[in-house]
Amino acid sequence: MNKIYFGGDYNPEQWPEQVWTEDYNYFKEAEIDTLTLGVFSWALIQKSEDTYDFTEMDEIMERARKEGKNVCMATGTAAHPPWMAHQFPDVTRVDFEGRKHKFGIRHNSCPNSPAYKRFSKKMAEKMAERYGDYENIIAWHINNEYGGSCYCEHCEAAFRVWLKKKYGTLDKLNEAWNTKFWSHIFYDWEEIVAPNALSEHYGRENVTAFQGITLDYMRFNSDSILNNFIAEKEVLKKATPAIPVTTNFMGMYRPLDYFKWAEHLDFISWDNYPPDMQSEARMALTHDLMRGLKKGKPFWLMEQTPSTTACRDFNAVKRPGVMRLWSYQAVAHGSDSVLFFQMRQSKGASEKYHGAVLDHSGKTDTRVCIETAKLGQELAKIGDAFTGAESKARIAIVFDWDSWWAVEISDGPSRYISYQKTMIDYYKALFHYNVDIDLISVDDDFSSYKLVIAPLLHMMKNNFDQRIEQFVQKGGTFLTTYLSGIVDENDNAILSERPGLLKKLMGIRIDETDTLHPDDKNYIELIADGWEGTYSCDTIFDLIQAKEAEAVAVYGDDFYKGMPAVTKNHFEAGEAWYIGAQVEAGFLKQLFGKILEDLAIQNPINAEEGIEIRSRFKDEEQYVFILNHAQKARKAVLDGVYRSLLDDRQYNGSGETIEVAAKDVVILKKM
Amino acid sequence: MNKIYFGGDYNPEQWPEQVWTEDYNYFKEAEIDTLTLGVFSWALIQKSEDTYDFTEMDEIMERARKEGKNVCMATGTAAHPPWMAHQFPDVTRVDFEGRKHKFGIRHNSCPNSPAYKRFSKKMAEKMAERYGDYENIIAWHINNEYGGSCYCEHCEAAFRVWLKKKYGTLDKLNEAWNTKFWSHIFYDWEEIVAPNALSEHYGRENVTAFQGITLDYMRFNSDSILNNFIAEKEVLKKATPAIPVTTNFMGMYRPLDYFKWAEHLDFISWDNYPPDMQSEARMALTHDLMRGLKKGKPFWLMEQTPSTTACRDFNAVKRPGVMRLWSYQAVAHGSDSVLFFQMRQSKGASEKYHGAVLDHSGKTDTRVCIETAKLGQELAKIGDAFTGAESKARIAIVFDWDSWWAVEISDGPSRYISYQKTMIDYYKALFHYNVDIDLISVDDDFSSYKLVIAPLLHMMKNNFDQRIEQFVQKGGTFLTTYLSGIVDENDNAILSERPGLLKKLMGIRIDETDTLHPDDKNYIELIADGWEGTYSCDTIFDLIQAKEAEAVAVYGDDFYKGMPAVTKNHFEAGEAWYIGAQVEAGFLKQLFGKILEDLAIQNPINAEEGIEIRSRFKDEEQYVFILNHAQKARKAVLDGVYRSLLDDRQYNGSGETIEVAAKDVVILKKM
Amino acid sequence: MNKIYFGGDYNPEQWPEQVWTEDYNYFKEAEIDTLTLGVFSWALIQKSEDTYDFTEMDEIMERARKEGKNVCMATGTAAHPPWMAHQFPDVTRVDFEGRKHKFGIRHNSCPNSPAYKRFSKKMAEKMAERYGDYENIIAWHINNEYGGSCYCEHCEAAFRVWLKKKYGTLDKLNEAWNTKFWSHIFYDWEEIVAPNALSEHYGRENVTAFQGITLDYMRFNSDSILNNFIAEKEVLKKATPAIPVTTNFMGMYRPLDYFKWAEHLDFISWDNYPPDMQSEARMALTHDLMRGLKKGKPFWLMEQTPSTTACRDFNAVKRPGVMRLWSYQAVAHGSDSVLFFQMRQSKGASEKYHGAVLDHSGKTDTRVCIETAKLGQELAKIGDAFTGAESKARIAIVFDWDSWWAVEISDGPSRYISYQKTMIDYYKALFHYNVDIDLISVDDDFSSYKLVIAPLLHMMKNNFDQRIEQFVQKGGTFLTTYLSGIVDENDNAILSERPGLLKKLMGIRIDETDTLHPDDKNYIELIADGWEGTYSCDTIFDLIQAKEAEAVAVYGDDFYKGMPAVTKNHFEAGEAWYIGAQVEAGFLKQLFGKILEDLAIQNPINAEEGIEIRSRFKDEEQYVFILNHAQKARKAVLDGVYRSLLDDRQYNGSGETIEVAAKDVVILKKM
Repeated sequence: MNKIYFGGDYNPEQWPEQVWTEDYNYFKEAEIDTLTLGVFSWALIQKSEDTYDFTEMDEIMERARKEGKNVCMATGTAAHPPWMAHQFPDVTRVDFEGRKHKFGIRHNSCPNSPAYKRFSKKMAEKMAERYGDYENIIAWHINNEYGGSCYCEHCEAAFRVWLKKKYGTLDKLNEAWNTKFWSHIFYDWEEIVAPNALSEHYGRENVTAFQGITLDYMRFNSDSILNNFIAEKEVLKKATPAIPVTTNFMGMYRPLDYFKWAEHLDFISWDNYPPDMQSEARMALTHDLMRGLKKGKPFWLMEQTPSTTACRDFNAVKRPGVMRLWSYQAVAHGSDSVLFFQMRQSKGASEKYHGAVLDHSGKTDTRVCIETAKLGQELAKIGDAFTGAESKARIAIVFDWDSWWAVEISDGPSRYISYQKTMIDYYKALFHYNVDIDLISVDDDFSSYKLVIAPLLHMMKNNFDQRIEQFVQKGGTFLTTYLSGIVDENDNAILSERPGLLKKLMGIRIDETDTLHPDDKNYIELIADGWEGTYSCDTIFDLIQAKEAEAVAVYGDDFYKGMPAVTKNHFEAGEAWYIGAQVEAGFLKQLFGKILEDLAIQNPINAEEGIEIRSRFKDEEQYVFILNHAQKARKAVLDGVYRSLLDDRQYNGSGETIEVAAKDVVILKKM
Repeated sequence: MNKIYFGGDYNPEQWPEQVWTEDYNYFKEAEIDTLTLGVFSWALIQKSEDTYDFTEMDEIMERARKEGKNVCMATGTAAHPPWMAHQFPDVTRVDFEGRKHKFGIRHNSCPNSPAYKRFSKKMAEKMAERYGDYENIIAWHINNEYGGSCYCEHCEAAFRVWLKKKYGTLDKLNEAWNTKFWSHIFYDWEEIVAPNALSEHYGRENVTAFQGITLDYMRFNSDSILNNFIAEKEVLKKATPAIPVTTNFMGMYRPLDYFKWAEHLDFISWDNYPPDMQSEARMALTHDLMRGLKKGKPFWLMEQTPSTTACRDFNAVKRPGVMRLWSYQAVAHGSDSVLFFQMRQSKGASEKYHGAVLDHSGKTDTRVCIETAKLGQELAKIGDAFTGAESKARIAIVFDWDSWWAVEISDGPSRYISYQKTMIDYYKALFHYNVDIDLISVDDDFSSYKLVIAPLLHMMKNNFDQRIEQFVQKGGTFLTTYLSGIVDENDNAILSERPGLLKKLMGIRIDETDTLHPDDKNYIELIADGWEGTYSCDTIFDLIQAKEAEAVAVYGDDFYKGMPAVTKNHFEAGEAWYIGAQVEAGFLKQLFGKILEDLAIQNPINAEEGIEIRSRFKDEEQYVFILNHAQKARKAVLDGVYRSLLDDRQYNGSGETIEVAAKDVVILKKM
Repeated sequence: MNKIYFGGDYNPEQWPEQVWTEDYNYFKEAEIDTLTLGVFSWALIQKSEDTYDFTEMDEIMERARKEGKNVCMATGTAAHPPWMAHQFPDVTRVDFEGRKHKFGIRHNSCPNSPAYKRFSKKMAEKMAERYGDYENIIAWHINNEYGGSCYCEHCEAAFRVWLKKKYGTLDKLNEAWNTKFWSHIFYDWEEIVAPNALSEHYGRENVTAFQGITLDYMRFNSDSILNNFIAEKEVLKKATPAIPVTTNFMGMYRPLDYFKWAEHLDFISWDNYPPDMQSEARMALTHDLMRGLKKGKPFWLMEQTPSTTACRDFNAVKRPGVMRLWSYQAVAHGSDSVLFFQMRQSKGASEKYHGAVLDHSGKTDTRVCIETAKLGQELAKIGDAFTGAESKARIAIVFDWDSWWAVEISDGPSRYISYQKTMIDYYKALFHYNVDIDLISVDDDFSSYKLVIAPLLHMMKNNFDQRIEQFVQKGGTFLTTYLSGIVDENDNAILSERPGLLKKLMGIRIDETDTLHPDDKNYIELIADGWEGTYSCDTIFDLIQAKEAEAVAVYGDDFYKGMPAVTKNHFEAGEAWYIGAQVEAGFLKQLFGKILEDLAIQNPINAEEGIEIRSRFKDEEQYVFILNHAQKARKAVLDGVYRSLLDDRQYNGSGETIEVAAKDVVILKKM
């Protein structure tokens, strides 16, 4: 890999060939080297059950090869053609409301549809057969943004097969789902139906009468869609074993357990569409999560908009410099590509107003074209300096889809608890300190970390409790929160006072958890030596009895005034922290400030608020990214000798101050 | 009945027998004497169409008998087993949206399903046969929290039969429903379909094009479910005529006309799950309503949580003392039991986090266990002191399901009118004065009351207008509000100026009723002799012309400034009050203060705000309950000689002050 | 036409004949001369597939004739009878959610149902045959408030036929809908399904994946319903060619393209139910639109409530004088009738509380009866003074259903853009100046206007761009806004920088349009000579580059601070204005103040705020309506000699001041 890939989705089939020439002229100017082709080409290529017509795709591929472009080649199976829905109605989905869908939209295929399974595999086969020997294909892009769910009778049948494989007997299933509750004992596998608005749910996806079946259906649905991916991958690998295979993930996307998916991808790629203009911490977290899926390996930024989205209620344009800044943020966190959706704006349908590098006018003197070309030229200059480079974080945050699902489908104690929001809150508090962070799964090895954080780790599985005890025994610091440690892998309660399997490590006992409306505030008072201040808290309140643990903070109000809200337990060589309430951000910032200080984890470069600093390491070389997310210029004080990659400037020693303009980026190589 | 029953729902079938022993050890300590068994046991017992297996239930029953516990025995028909939904799909419901449900949740059976009717009756029969001779069964608990509605074709067919029986001819039905409106004349019974989102409703349950059919369907649905109850009751009574039969009601539950149900129950029982921590007046009202269903007979508190619910968006724990306080409140209002849901917390599914006496840890040194045991010991001490005791209220509030339904499904004048909220508003104003209140039906005898209040009594039926006129003629005081008196039992308008059939009694004429957004305030000015002040009003404004009546208050603003808003009519020996607008609480408080003063209805015990006082009478003895709902200690000044039941303290005369701690309770016997 | 028709909907079939006599007595007193009969009479008349029974309708008609009343005769086809839904299920609709409806509500027939098409045509035929020779029928009233939509298989099939007729080939359709996007290429007409929640839509009617198919379905649906109208009209015209035919429109009603419908109506009529008490500008706009549908011809006000609606969440009564004021407003804007819904209030079902002239009491000394009679007497006095009179506006606002649809179903740039709200905002700014305004279609001739305004004219069709250029070249002033000019008739983007086909005329270039949450405000600064002030703006912000145009205002904040927000382009003899952001009302008021001044368009009568002035012209005579919408008396200064029609007072010269009481009306004839 001789440089960071630059380019993105390109759909020339929507345009006459004269436009292609305009496009390629600009690509050259902007150093665009990589094109993702054919993402929604199914109806174009497969015109009927037996007819595949590659005429147009051949022209597109030939032109890309002729122009010397890398191709990320899609299999095109993310939206089935109309004829398929018409002739093979099983390809469409039944939704959560139990409604059978007709043809439309995209990402519309039932993962267990016999027709879809047959045709999608065949399509991948045909694509590999036709284009497998194009030496400019650098990756297969299977499907697109896999997701959603289906509740049709094919899924229902496949669910029963999945359950039989998992549980073996109905007795075990009945035990796992606790079916003596509410007269739910199953005596025949055929009695099991998909859990949705017509069966176990009270109208909403998160409100189920039976967590066990709903949780298993979420797992089954993720697995079903993964099987679609694997089926295509197998035929591609058979035809072209050397071409790496991916599919574009969607970051913190709840329906798919990406940790389970990751092993099947040759590399991770994802699409970054943050919800607003203040998303830098959220994006950082998500990049780290995507990198963590494959234990730190670089990933691809497969999509981002060069300017604006279209599908939101409102769609702000990216401010000057922001597209470049966010592109480098992806790179700083481990991306080896900067790819856009899309190269030329569609002229009709629902992405007509979605931003693109080239807009409806085709003019190249637009702000977007100019900024894109500048970035392309920079990336060309950077070359392969840090492609393949990895991170060396000493902090890990545990991210777990099962806990996410379990905590959000739970009846009680509070529906105001959001897994994603909580992860962002904890990440943000650390983000402030410019420390490198890995996002890991519960199964990963903790030994390389000094600090492991697991907010809302509701579910205990694979001996996590024992493994984390060992980590702390050996000197590690572990931190967790309310609602952690208290259910097993079937979402049944650990039969113990809370925090369940973590109570020994935490050295506390919790009999009661109060929950109130988020507007009803309590507060905590820091009482341990060296701590001070009061902070508001809300939503959830564990009534902690400190046993072996020390109370760091206590509640300031209500009948549990004076009871511990935050505790720290010395556990052999290490420490275990428990946060019993949803406390305001300022507390988390103070908390991590102290912990990082104790653990001597800190960034040697001192920077003003708004600056983000991340490092990548390659062949013993360290590359430091200084990103200014603020609206104004910000300063950082360097700690050694560095060379700036973009302008070749040399920084000659510790204490030297560097000023980074608003939204600007500095990339330093440590000398 | 030798004491107040204490205990609650118990589901040992979800646990191994060693846990049962732990449970019974605690029951003994806590003086728990009554267990409700088998509520959701259908799937456990009936394993197929023809197989009933009582093995586990036998063990449970034997143990309860051996341990000397009273059993409230459920028939278990509140949730059908999965095999039944699979093999007899007619047992599941079609919802308001017209969607046929599959298996899931609970309370899930169509009341007119042939299979459900057959199997539920058979189940009751089997239970009676198996356990009917257990002398420790103190009641049959049929089904559980009956409710909901169904719109399937079986219901549709049964609805037509119900209509034929009610109307006899289509001409009468067409007249009742006013079907010349909007081309709705029915010429064949088969043309009538269930009114829901696919027929007469605009998406929402309260928004119908035809009030007549919707109202009749609500009545039909209530009757259909009542028929399920009666069918089970009949087989139980045949087998065990001596065991009283009940089912647990849900307080102010709109779908079922409990006044119509009550005659079929041997005693009333209900489940008390108030929406928030400030619900004392609401709970008081509801207890009074439950007591009123059987004309003042004691009822059972069948369920309450000892600590927290799970199904709400957030679920606060009951504060220290609150469980005990609310238990005694139930008793003060006529309950002869204090029962919980449930004895031991479920380990999985949607009630995993619902509070229970024994939680997942099984520890008995929790706050909940300690408070429960203390209460159990107190109740044991109290014994049968006032079991069976009744109230002697001189105030009645008329509660009417038909008016509730009619006023809330009405198109116009305002969808911001809530029957339940209005009842609570009026009750709250009286609650302040610590006067005993009965909740009665329109059919009840008024002669024992001095004051009858009927807010929102929209529908006139069974000569209510004439009977209430007689009540007033003889010296009674009657008070009603906007929207009262103006439709007949088919929800057709009384062809008269408003308040329709009550206009003569009220001595007023209303041609126009203005309604505004609740945020748009007007105000009233009190103008009658002895009255003063202004109060804000909103939402609805009757433009009253006082004829025989006197204007007590007039509007302060808008084009009807100066027109009466509140009137009083001297009608022979009595008085009739009309409240024409939704006025703020302060006015209602002043209003009832004056009326109670005039009628010389007052509690001889003078208490500070926050104290509730209620009395029960048994064999000429009076028991006075002083309940402190406030967050601080409050005082009351006694009017005579009393003995305190819980601490045997004697109070020796009028004027003595008693201080009641926050959330504490004093029970006095008048000597 | 010898006077303004006065009366309205009358449903005596719901009442016994003795009530009819009461009604007619009042009609006489109130000078009510016109009754709309039989609107929902289908079930009454057609009792089965083959049985028509006119007994009751004959009596009704005879009585009306005997009493000398004009009849607006309905065909009664707006709600099919229950037997029809039962025996011919294809008459009911399938809704947007894909749910097949059963019998209920009204306006419930599928427009492409074979049964409905057959029976509705037959019903019109029968009505014409039975009553066609009643000389007192002054109009046929087909159906009632046509509207809604259906997605059944009959509609789906008819949609394919409609598409074949429109596009001829699938290639053209695929091109129009841009189906290479998202794998949507259709190879067989049968593959096309109706776009709804089960196919192309994401749950909401405005959120579609394919604008092309959704837009065509909206057009198809409007056409389908229009075909129902035409089918009835044809049989009526055959039987009674001399009787004019109408149907009652609903003002700014999105589902039906009334400009396309208008040519098929002999005259326009509409139902005026404004959403609140501050709707004078909105109603004025809507009256102007209804008049504009037939190029200025007078219309009928077919319905308004005399007092209150019933279907709203709350339903305020019309304040004293308001019913009269709004009646005259309709007349001032071109109505030749003042008709109510309805004459006597229904006693049951969903319009039981809808206001009527005669209420449930039947008393005639109510405020409503008194105000109605007073108005009737005034209209009798006015006679035919200005019936048939037209307006002479020099300002036109372009209203376009296609743009309305396209802009609101668009994905991006902002779902906060409302076509209707924007039209009202621009109209309101002009309304302040008491200038006559025409609402016109894009196809109308602009030559009689000095100023043409086209807010949100998203879609360019029928050479609008060229025709409006010619208008400006010849000296006209044209004003448009953001989102105008940028899609073709298939909603595909004009391949150009914005404003697309209007860019030459506007002399500007727009590469980017920012959209933000409506709460995020920016502001504009007026910088051109003679302009001053700053105004807040929000929601949408075009980043304008002024080319030939002059910047009148620039943005005050954000990265586009200083870029033009409002521009003016001198284009040969005329001027072209472009408004690039949603700016607050104060700006539009200043803007139009200047433009009207420049164009010397102004009302010679100078009036205080709250006064509306409109004129009608007949046979060279001018009638001036002065309407005081304010809560207090307001003054106007006359410019010449006038005679007041209602009180015969003479105003003798320029400068004379006239005071109009709150809610009062003065009608002047210019002498």
